[in-house]
Amino acid sequence: MTDRKPPRVVIIGGGFGGMSAARALRRARVDVTLVDRTNHHVFQPLLYQVATATLSETDITAPIRYLLRKQANTRVLMGEVVDVDVAQRTVRLDDGSELPYDYLIVAAGARHSYFGRDAWEALAPGLKSIEDALEMRRRFLLAFEQAEREPDPAAREALLTFVIVGAGPTGVELAGMVPTISRDTLAPDYRAVDTRRVRVVLVEGGPRILPTFPEELAARARRDLEELGVEVRTGQLVTDVSADGVTVAGERLHAATVFWAAGNAASALGGRLGAPVDRAGRVLVSPDLSLPGRPELFVVGDLAAVVSEGKAVPGVAPAANQEGTHAARMIVRDLQARPRVPFRYWNKGDLATIGRNRAIASFGERLHLTGTIAWFFWLFVHILYLAGFRNRLSVLLEWGYAYFTYQRGARLIIEPVRHNPAPAAAPVLTPKW
Amino acid sequence: MTDRKPPRVVIIGGGFGGMSAARALRRARVDVTLVDRTNHHVFQPLLYQVATATLSETDITAPIRYLLRKQANTRVLMGEVVDVDVAQRTVRLDDGSELPYDYLIVAAGARHSYFGRDAWEALAPGLKSIEDALEMRRRFLLAFEQAEREPDPAAREALLTFVIVGAGPTGVELAGMVPTISRDTLAPDYRAVDTRRVRVVLVEGGPRILPTFPEELAARARRDLEELGVEVRTGQLVTDVSADGVTVAGERLHAATVFWAAGNAASALGGRLGAPVDRAGRVLVSPDLSLPGRPELFVVGDLAAVVSEGKAVPGVAPAANQEGTHAARMIVRDLQARPRVPFRYWNKGDLATIGRNRAIASFGERLHLTGTIAWFFWLFVHILYLAGFRNRLSVLLEWGYAYFTYQRGARLIIEPVRHNPAPAAAPVLTPKW
Repeated sequence: MTDRKPPRVVIIGGGFGGMSAARALRRARVDVTLVDRTNHHVFQPLLYQVATATLSETDITAPIRYLLRKQANTRVLMGEVVDVDVAQRTVRLDDGSELPYDYLIVAAGARHSYFGRDAWEALAPGLKSIEDALEMRRRFLLAFEQAEREPDPAAREALLTFVIVGAGPTGVELAGMVPTISRDTLAPDYRAVDTRRVRVVLVEGGPRILPTFPEELAARARRDLEELGVEVRTGQLVTDVSADGVTVAGERLHAATVFWAAGNAASALGGRLGAPVDRAGRVLVSPDLSLPGRPELFVVGDLAAVVSEGKAVPGVAPAANQEGTHAARMIVRDLQARPRVPFRYWNKGDLATIGRNRAIASFGERLHLTGTIAWFFWLFVHILYLAGFRNRLSVLLEWGYAYFTYQRGARLIIEPVRHNPAPAAAPVLTPKW
Repeated sequence: MTDRKPPRVVIIGGGFGGMSAARALRRARVDVTLVDRTNHHVFQPLLYQVATATLSETDITAPIRYLLRKQANTRVLMGEVVDVDVAQRTVRLDDGSELPYDYLIVAAGARHSYFGRDAWEALAPGLKSIEDALEMRRRFLLAFEQAEREPDPAAREALLTFVIVGAGPTGVELAGMVPTISRDTLAPDYRAVDTRRVRVVLVEGGPRILPTFPEELAARARRDLEELGVEVRTGQLVTDVSADGVTVAGERLHAATVFWAAGNAASALGGRLGAPVDRAGRVLVSPDLSLPGRPELFVVGDLAAVVSEGKAVPGVAPAANQEGTHAARMIVRDLQARPRVPFRYWNKGDLATIGRNRAIASFGERLHLTGTIAWFFWLFVHILYLAGFRNRLSVLLEWGYAYFTYQRGARLIIEPVRHNPAPAAAPVLTPKW
């Protein structure tokens, strides 16, 4: 038995789903290869803090290979998966090389959905990757710089108007931070504009904000946002986005900056697995998270449409973590010749912050927290789950600094167009010897 | 007298020269406008630590308007200066607006010079801005990621070869960091490649490294570099740079990564001032740092060719600081109807680090330090001069972390081409209402 080569497990994606799967295999007799198109794991729940200049992008990322460096059975490859051949059991990478597998865990995640209006993406960036967050931060800070130079009052008002589309946790957290930072942090630094007069509009197509939260908590969050001066518009659809604003329920809002936090579209890789997908492109998985008829292929995280105890599992970090771990455990059970078991989601609770000092938290039906106590709880949980000792310390320092000084550590505009023009990646990626 | 409008002082550039000029005018009865094309001041002497993944870019930058927020007589504009009309005394910005001035201090700095071979810039990036440092970091880290995936031994060797052109302080400090980090930090994280076998070549066209340092210290630095395994090649010229390497003194070196630290070209703005410039494009200034025949126009920092006590003043941060302060003081003297005085450079000493624990320091002819004591001195001086309390604390934390754990806090590859395509700045910069 020990002479046989260990089964090859390939994991696609170094987000929460892929990382938890890799970690759960650390003591298994398997050869693990984790592939990600970036070199880093991102703590996605804090991306909005990078987008709003509070945390540095290095605070919420860690190199994937550093996090897995002590797992002797695991190697990490930076590369983009372009296809999966489920019949031949191989994964094809962007450089044409192939990775054969005995087990495959696909955790390729999701991007934003613009509901078929792809041109909106360039006008209203979303928030999934570090690159997204830096682009959002650039636009957020640049709007104030341009307002300071703008002589025309109407144009200046539009530069100080921020529209956030979608009122899930990301939209709500962004909407809470924009007025907080504009007032507390930026105001003393500007001469021509009063950054405290910023206008923030949060637009949600559904009947209420935070649809996955209990109604009472969502109502409290709405009041908290309104106290910060945020205009909350529910039941209103965005019908147009252009460079000078958005059209919401027939009304034109002049805004230089629009952020997108509405709707997910699962990775295109989901469609290449030969399994049915739902409207959002998520792969419909069996109760054990494998594909029907393909027990060696698991899909976890935002790419999977998972049902647990009759209810759809939400696309949040704890769910991806639990799914990744479950898929890994099913592989270990196969090796031990034990039967598989269905995945069961344990909802640890829902959390969202609103600006400074306020949050809402729900733990099942009975325990709901709001205000400062919920905010401290939020702080504790996020520090606890943040990957790596260094990041925890650094984030604590940044938050302490921001809390006591009202300053923010990452007010840096980086231009996507370099002064020193970066060539297309090609010359570096494919040197010719 | 108090009824007259205060003189308008325009400062171009928020580097060391411009910032020190603005600060020296904080109590003067003048209206100061500082223009920079970015929103941040960069602590340039530590850019190489961002390029080699030790510090985050937010550690060595601070918003210019934050640094000057308490100066009631000063406003800050983010914008690019496209021209200066010295006859009309106006500065023209990229959006077509004009800033009239009574005094102008030009501190627009320098870029790298590729000695007429501009195509080399995309192949061998330099290190002047945050964007440059992030591009260098991306290439530095990407080389190891690509080597890990590369099956061909020759190609892998080229990916682990780093050529650094130019052996001034920046080139020497980069050359010292590459092997240090490759060995101490990266080695445990890779499976296929041995990052300790990195090859680092430092090429210098002149007869020795660190030409502005005393010869004995430069020789020590060379020995320190060679102990780290760096190949130091002096008196050798680079005659070709391409995607797969460089040609040095007729020999072809296969290298995927080439960094440029040789030669400066002063900002093109220098040529628009109507004054003679030297071969590097630096403006020849009078002893008081103003232009001959234009007492209201000063040029300071890397853009100025300054002579003090018969010697050329080097293009270093302390010189730019002193020159900016001097120009500001001459304006104050004018207002007080006191005569101007010539600029005198006070050389506080030269400092450079070589990897971990080693540095060289020279204070005049008599006091030279080397090894660990010089390194601690270097550390102390850099923390002391770093702008902003927050940055000092953050950098100390990062250095402490790096020193004791051998880890680096900023091993993040950010792609210049966004997943979420950023539009040309136009739609954001010129909204149409």
